[in-house]
Amino acid sequence: MDEFDLIHSITPRTIHHSSVDVGIGDDAALYTAKHGVQEIVCVDTMVEDVHFKLLYSSPEDIGYKALAVNISDIAAMGGIPKFYLVSIAVPPKWTQSEIKAMYEGMNELAKLYHMDLIGGDTVSISDKLVVTVTVIGEVEKGRACLRSLARPNDIVFVTGEIGSSAAGLSLLLEKTHSQTSAIDTDYFIHRHKRPEPRVSVGRLCSSFKRAALNDISDGLASELNEIAEASCVSIEIDESMLPVHSHLSKLHPIWKEWALFGGEDFELTGTVSKSNWEVLKQECETRQLPITKIGHVREKTESNVILKTDNGSRILEKKGYNHFK
Amino acid sequence: MDEFDLIHSITPRTIHHSSVDVGIGDDAALYTAKHGVQEIVCVDTMVEDVHFKLLYSSPEDIGYKALAVNISDIAAMGGIPKFYLVSIAVPPKWTQSEIKAMYEGMNELAKLYHMDLIGGDTVSISDKLVVTVTVIGEVEKGRACLRSLARPNDIVFVTGEIGSSAAGLSLLLEKTHSQTSAIDTDYFIHRHKRPEPRVSVGRLCSSFKRAALNDISDGLASELNEIAEASCVSIEIDESMLPVHSHLSKLHPIWKEWALFGGEDFELTGTVSKSNWEVLKQECETRQLPITKIGHVREKTESNVILKTDNGSRILEKKGYNHFK
Repeated sequence: MDEFDLIHSITPRTIHHSSVDVGIGDDAALYTAKHGVQEIVCVDTMVEDVHFKLLYSSPEDIGYKALAVNISDIAAMGGIPKFYLVSIAVPPKWTQSEIKAMYEGMNELAKLYHMDLIGGDTVSISDKLVVTVTVIGEVEKGRACLRSLARPNDIVFVTGEIGSSAAGLSLLLEKTHSQTSAIDTDYFIHRHKRPEPRVSVGRLCSSFKRAALNDISDGLASELNEIAEASCVSIEIDESMLPVHSHLSKLHPIWKEWALFGGEDFELTGTVSKSNWEVLKQECETRQLPITKIGHVREKTESNVILKTDNGSRILEKKGYNHFK
Repeated sequence: MDEFDLIHSITPRTIHHSSVDVGIGDDAALYTAKHGVQEIVCVDTMVEDVHFKLLYSSPEDIGYKALAVNISDIAAMGGIPKFYLVSIAVPPKWTQSEIKAMYEGMNELAKLYHMDLIGGDTVSISDKLVVTVTVIGEVEKGRACLRSLARPNDIVFVTGEIGSSAAGLSLLLEKTHSQTSAIDTDYFIHRHKRPEPRVSVGRLCSSFKRAALNDISDGLASELNEIAEASCVSIEIDESMLPVHSHLSKLHPIWKEWALFGGEDFELTGTVSKSNWEVLKQECETRQLPITKIGHVREKTESNVILKTDNGSRILEKKGYNHFK
């Protein structure tokens, strides 16, 4: 693969942000930060056969998701994504057109958010493709939705539905088989491959004086544990209130585990005050953004996160979920 | 390896920049950009057995260099490095103490520049370690040293000496053997493993109204070609003026190729006006920063870069150098 040719083919023809002073083509990118905002920066790496397999995902899907998971981190800060940089280590078995298709998948999502590709690196590797995406965003000064901002009596919420991504992966790996054509298995698979970062909900939360937010990468239980720890509070959620797809329970008896520990849904979970919850719920309804109240924040007890069930209650540990095991 | 334990062990205890609002520990880092500056951002990936081998380099060396090459890009823009983020894909054969040592190598260099580690990601990979470093810096508005800023009659210069890194690698790979103990082979090897980014010289150049700069990652010939192309000029350099270590020519007959095409010296090469050159030379002398005039910028001709030799002249192509071949 000719690196110069690749760089030429992926270099954007247009730039959305006038604040980009120098994009791809010099030693580094240059941009001017706005006054009155804080810069947000995050980075995530995805590795072939650890985070994705070409057997299940197209290069476009892989590119899409590599950018989506980073945009989701910006959303979880209440921010607006602006720029991204892509560093890839490419093994010989990947063709140039597959690499271009991966960038196309990123570009598809970037266009939605008016994001500019402003830099990156391309190197060789012997075996597996590694893609690292850095995303830069911004949020109005003092309005970031930090994990440490949950307070007792806050309402705990989650966007969209949870467990669908884990269900999709399970279907892809053929650990789960749908018994009936009445279940739209493609839907779950799509949720795994093409998560939708919840930037709009993050932006609504950042309009409040205080909101705690996390995106669901490692599973609801893990994310709520992080909020509880950082805020020195306990969180109590109600199993019956967890938003899941109506077909989820029909797919596999493990469905509750998917919802609590599955991860990779890239929904947002967080807490706001009771009065802000009413505003948030209303605003989300108006914009047709699904959001569900799932519990309350309590004064700190011994347990960080408690799940109330029909039979009593259960402590939710910070355990993750190993997807390809 | 326990990711939480690793993150805890690498999370900095102190932060140099008061502009860091949130460092490691939330979904993303937050910082406030200064007024009157432009933000600079770059990313570079290094892959085990492509860019380094554990056989030759310690984990500290690898960490040091992964950060150094990015600081060098900031230097080549005339900027000040501020923050870095590290994303690593770790194979099972790397121990936790090796990973920590790699971060220590970065930290050693970061301390010199008062840089803060503000984020990153840690994932698994089956085979080779991959480390991707993102660096953020800043430069006074309008003062970045872009490749496109060379003008006819400018003086062309290079810092330090060139070819030493390629010589060091050749010694490491045992393609070159020193015939005499009078040659300090460790010096060349050190230059390969621990390049020193030329931030101070970049800063001096950014004080001028106009300076073109590139750092030497792919070799002097390649970097000057990039400046010539971006600036629509031709560059003429003089072989007899190229700064090389006095022992370089004794190591191997290929030494001129090392100097012109070897790369990885991470010195700076660039152009400034004649009057600015006098100032730059003086300032570098005062600060004991080695810098050498090597040629002139000319009106654009058919050839981008011409090397004048005793026997006439030769066109320098943009060819690179494949280190492990």
